[in-house]
Amino acid sequence: MKVVCVIGVGLIGGSFSKDIQAHYPEVKRIGIDTNDHYLAEALKLGVIDEIGHLEDVALADLVFIAIPVDATLKILPQVLDLVADHTVVIDAGSTKASLCEAVQNHPKRRHYLSAHPIAGTEFSGPSAAIAGLFKGKTQIICEVEQTAFKLQEKALEVFHALGMRIRYMNAAAHDVHIAYVSHLSHISAFMLGKTVMEKEENERDIFDMAGSGFESTVRLAKSSPAMWAPIFKDNKTAVVAALSEYIDNLQRFKSLVEANDFEGVYAQMDQTNRIKDILNGLTHQNK
Amino acid sequence: MKVVCVIGVGLIGGSFSKDIQAHYPEVKRIGIDTNDHYLAEALKLGVIDEIGHLEDVALADLVFIAIPVDATLKILPQVLDLVADHTVVIDAGSTKASLCEAVQNHPKRRHYLSAHPIAGTEFSGPSAAIAGLFKGKTQIICEVEQTAFKLQEKALEVFHALGMRIRYMNAAAHDVHIAYVSHLSHISAFMLGKTVMEKEENERDIFDMAGSGFESTVRLAKSSPAMWAPIFKDNKTAVVAALSEYIDNLQRFKSLVEANDFEGVYAQMDQTNRIKDILNGLTHQNK
Repeated sequence: MKVVCVIGVGLIGGSFSKDIQAHYPEVKRIGIDTNDHYLAEALKLGVIDEIGHLEDVALADLVFIAIPVDATLKILPQVLDLVADHTVVIDAGSTKASLCEAVQNHPKRRHYLSAHPIAGTEFSGPSAAIAGLFKGKTQIICEVEQTAFKLQEKALEVFHALGMRIRYMNAAAHDVHIAYVSHLSHISAFMLGKTVMEKEENERDIFDMAGSGFESTVRLAKSSPAMWAPIFKDNKTAVVAALSEYIDNLQRFKSLVEANDFEGVYAQMDQTNRIKDILNGLTHQNK
Repeated sequence: MKVVCVIGVGLIGGSFSKDIQAHYPEVKRIGIDTNDHYLAEALKLGVIDEIGHLEDVALADLVFIAIPVDATLKILPQVLDLVADHTVVIDAGSTKASLCEAVQNHPKRRHYLSAHPIAGTEFSGPSAAIAGLFKGKTQIICEVEQTAFKLQEKALEVFHALGMRIRYMNAAAHDVHIAYVSHLSHISAFMLGKTVMEKEENERDIFDMAGSGFESTVRLAKSSPAMWAPIFKDNKTAVVAALSEYIDNLQRFKSLVEANDFEGVYAQMDQTNRIKDILNGLTHQNK
């Protein structure tokens, strides 16, 4: 590889670009973004080697798109229009079905590899980029059979260099599952933060009483609305279904408390304690 | 001080006992618990110096009660019946109003200091005890004026030795506020875990897709049901109120998504992002 274009030089794109430099020091990394402030910051921090424009993707061996999903939906067909024969275009969006659908009849569909790296933090922008962010993390690849075999190989070589575990999924199944393990967690945290902040408006001392448990549960409420609103829009059906099941569970728990059925309350928590083993599995996997 | 009795040798009682040894090495620490396995483990781990019985509180300069709140409600009057003139009895329960009420007419009410250390982890038992757990953490003291002045002084000296920040509150206000910043976070995490696990029953691979965001949001679902069911029972009114407001906020968020009002969705998250500054404050405070 000689040239990699990173569209979106924030947390995910910036981290990818840092890893590209570490594993492919000969590669020139061109950053493309609608946010000039981010571009200047990324250049200053060494997250990219130079600032470019959309047309520069024609020079790239690999294009990595890490911008909000609604923006990806618009730009992906334009990128495919521009790229050369040997170029693979990878995105990192948190939803996959609408992207795959948007380019299913594009003449250069086989240049696109639809991916979702399960990695990130609650921070955003080039300063949030972390070298090694993807090491040991899962890369979910959707509709892999739609990507040209040689370009699959090129992408996989990069993912392996970054230390990622690869999982293949159907795009629709990805979107339903991710609504539960990712999108719902974010809504849960945002609304918990909102509920407590509303109470706090009249009760100034309330946060003085908050410990690490609250901090951990509400952490994702720091996440970027510019990234998350388009995700909820794009994955509306699955998000509404997951949220409905969550609200039903909360309602049932509330009904048990109201009915003084504390054996029932105990049983619900006791059953859910099994999450310990599952999370231990996750921790091992993420190491 | 010569003798400290710790009733409940789990995470909180065990951590307190470890700190007592560190700051008052001359003190004999007697552990009292209904769980013989815990007592043996605590002794083996050096969390306590010897195993005792309830009657031994008559020998103590300080009694620290760290057991589920329903058990504390039963044992606190018995402990007060037994203690000597110079003894202070401190509890660590997550609810305070019913405890204060239970002993308000007890002839030895002035021996009791009603406290809630905002410290802990999602783990339990003597092996979860951590030296220094209370350092930099908030100790909420309720109805301090009901405690004899000399015994207040004795307790405060210990809390200062452990490095705690002291806050004084009305017991009823404590219970309402803590429902938001602690009890609600636990219910939110337990029900998130339950919702995702229910989905997973049919979809084996779902946790393969979970990242650190899910792990953080669901962490408290590992907590002990034996500790939490009595808290929800004791603080029923405030817990139901907080949970109702949380459910209302989730419902409103869901309605915005269903109505395709993604500017509204964005605005809700954007407003809640202010939690960053609040959590930064917490982090500084907890350091």
